[in-house]
Amino acid sequence: MKFICKRTDLVQSIQTVSKAVSSKNQNPILSGIYIKAENNTLELQATDYEIGIICKVEAQVEEPGNIVLSGKYIQEVIRKLPGVNVEFEYDKQEKISHIKSNRSHFTLLSMSADDFPIIHKIAGDYEFKIMDNILRELISRTTFSCSNEEARPVFTGCLMEINESSVIMAATDTKRLAVQSKIVEGIDTQRKMIIPSKILNEIQKLLISDMPRTVNINYSTSQISFEFDNTYISSRLIDGQYPDYHRVIPNDFSTRIKLNTEEFRAVVDRIALISRTNDYNIATMEFANGMVRITSNNPEIGNADESLAAEIDGEDITISFNADYISDVLKIIESKEFYISLNNSLSPAAIRMMDDESFTYVITPVRTMDKQ
Amino acid sequence: MKFICKRTDLVQSIQTVSKAVSSKNQNPILSGIYIKAENNTLELQATDYEIGIICKVEAQVEEPGNIVLSGKYIQEVIRKLPGVNVEFEYDKQEKISHIKSNRSHFTLLSMSADDFPIIHKIAGDYEFKIMDNILRELISRTTFSCSNEEARPVFTGCLMEINESSVIMAATDTKRLAVQSKIVEGIDTQRKMIIPSKILNEIQKLLISDMPRTVNINYSTSQISFEFDNTYISSRLIDGQYPDYHRVIPNDFSTRIKLNTEEFRAVVDRIALISRTNDYNIATMEFANGMVRITSNNPEIGNADESLAAEIDGEDITISFNADYISDVLKIIESKEFYISLNNSLSPAAIRMMDDESFTYVITPVRTMDKQ
Repeated sequence: MKFICKRTDLVQSIQTVSKAVSSKNQNPILSGIYIKAENNTLELQATDYEIGIICKVEAQVEEPGNIVLSGKYIQEVIRKLPGVNVEFEYDKQEKISHIKSNRSHFTLLSMSADDFPIIHKIAGDYEFKIMDNILRELISRTTFSCSNEEARPVFTGCLMEINESSVIMAATDTKRLAVQSKIVEGIDTQRKMIIPSKILNEIQKLLISDMPRTVNINYSTSQISFEFDNTYISSRLIDGQYPDYHRVIPNDFSTRIKLNTEEFRAVVDRIALISRTNDYNIATMEFANGMVRITSNNPEIGNADESLAAEIDGEDITISFNADYISDVLKIIESKEFYISLNNSLSPAAIRMMDDESFTYVITPVRTMDKQ
Repeated sequence: MKFICKRTDLVQSIQTVSKAVSSKNQNPILSGIYIKAENNTLELQATDYEIGIICKVEAQVEEPGNIVLSGKYIQEVIRKLPGVNVEFEYDKQEKISHIKSNRSHFTLLSMSADDFPIIHKIAGDYEFKIMDNILRELISRTTFSCSNEEARPVFTGCLMEINESSVIMAATDTKRLAVQSKIVEGIDTQRKMIIPSKILNEIQKLLISDMPRTVNINYSTSQISFEFDNTYISSRLIDGQYPDYHRVIPNDFSTRIKLNTEEFRAVVDRIALISRTNDYNIATMEFANGMVRITSNNPEIGNADESLAAEIDGEDITISFNADYISDVLKIIESKEFYISLNNSLSPAAIRMMDDESFTYVITPVRTMDKQ
């Protein structure tokens, strides 16, 4: 195996596939990156059995072949090489790879490609196309609400609901729920599946580019794949029954409050200095007389108390939330103002953006002592 | 106690004194910042008994007094407050401090100032002045060579040698030595003392400013203080006998090599990818035929091999070093080219900058198998 390629191309594709390199010390071959050279193309692969990533790179292949290299070392070495090009040659006898660039010459011990669990592309039940910016928004506005608790796997994933003209993504950790829907043309089927949030977050990072592009999504009963540019990513789906999130979203509210996003974000950020020292991270909000007063208290440290103008439509109300659940959603609100809709201090509240009906965030209040 | 002051002034002085706030959980009062208000000035203090820092801030003092606040919370709260000014009032009855800025109102439980070990300024044996840029260079070019091993306290500090017309700073961890001398006018005494490198590094950070300023240094047998602008820092000196570092610096060398700093830095950086996986971090350098060839090897990973032009004056030589000891010194070399001076593969080498005799770095080679 022997090839020459552009160093920056190789760096980028190694970086992409390395997201799937296993960090657990299960099987040494999974800590490696598989490289196959043929037809003037390199195919890089990495997998931890849950996620698999394939990335293609143009190269001048002088001798075809395949090999597995330690993901840890190959990434650092290629990134730091001095030249524009990288020359790669595998010495089968010695089982070492020679990597040259200008006057720099590295040799790395290599593993046999025979032991690598080659990723086979899914021949799925159904395939549809989605624009990268739409997929990115579906992901960024929901995954933050997933649970990290592996004990209940369903909640570590996002529900993806495909309808004839839309894709809806929903995420919940049972205490809060984020739902984002997007119109997507050209889908003529219905389907629900639960995608691990880890893979969605990686895809979101990989889709950061100014160039608009189309993502091909393909799924079977147990797997899903995303394909764009020279990259192919596949993941297992999470098995289980996702709860009916529609039932969690209240139909109407007795009070709707309009708040300035930037100002409210700064206030919650300060209140959190005290609330986060509490066991339940409680911030209490009193909406009354065209103002919201937010307070938090820790008898061992002190308390925080701040007020802000609020446009209140409906009855006055006092309600307590986990401050993190509020700041999390404020991070993704792009509109200058937003709404909090409430019924009473024990019922779920909804947060929505201005002029954007496609996003809904539902949050369960915290019961505090004086309300029980 | 009651005062109003500019928020940014207070943030900066809290940040400065917080370097001396104890991170160990010894005595709760040492995790606090002492604030005294009188004569339209705030005096902030923090100490962990090793270092003490005093910082002064202008304020409009309405009621004089003193108090101790948790260093952790006060720093975050003041930094995040929304307004230009901070209003502070201590409620003696409730033992809480009220901190207001615009519509933000924090209360923090406070500790009595009676229990705080007030820092008394040293009335030292001798005092001299030094420009901040000179002190900064003395520190930045030496402290990196100190040891971190508390078992031998002398080597965790820098030797400061004051002569009639110069200040010399030396640091060693017994395997390498950095010496920097600077001409300082107006000293009419001689003295040697060992200053903890921790305090020197903090001073270096505090001296980063474009405004040239004078630092007043004052010392007694057991303490040293540094005073500049509104800041006063005192530290204990390290007790013990510092070795005679002059004896470590070879008088002459059989080979002197001139290298390009930037290029050599990049090469060592790459070689370190392999060398740092070794127990001894060994990089071997062969100086011959107008070139330096640098190699490093780990039988379990692979090896690195790179060449670079070198202007060799004297005999060819092969020598091995701990790669970190080379990259550490390369970080502070500002000249475009620098010298390595050698005698043989087992004798100490010296590294010096171009056109700057004031700095010397001595490094002990590593014995490798094939040389024993």
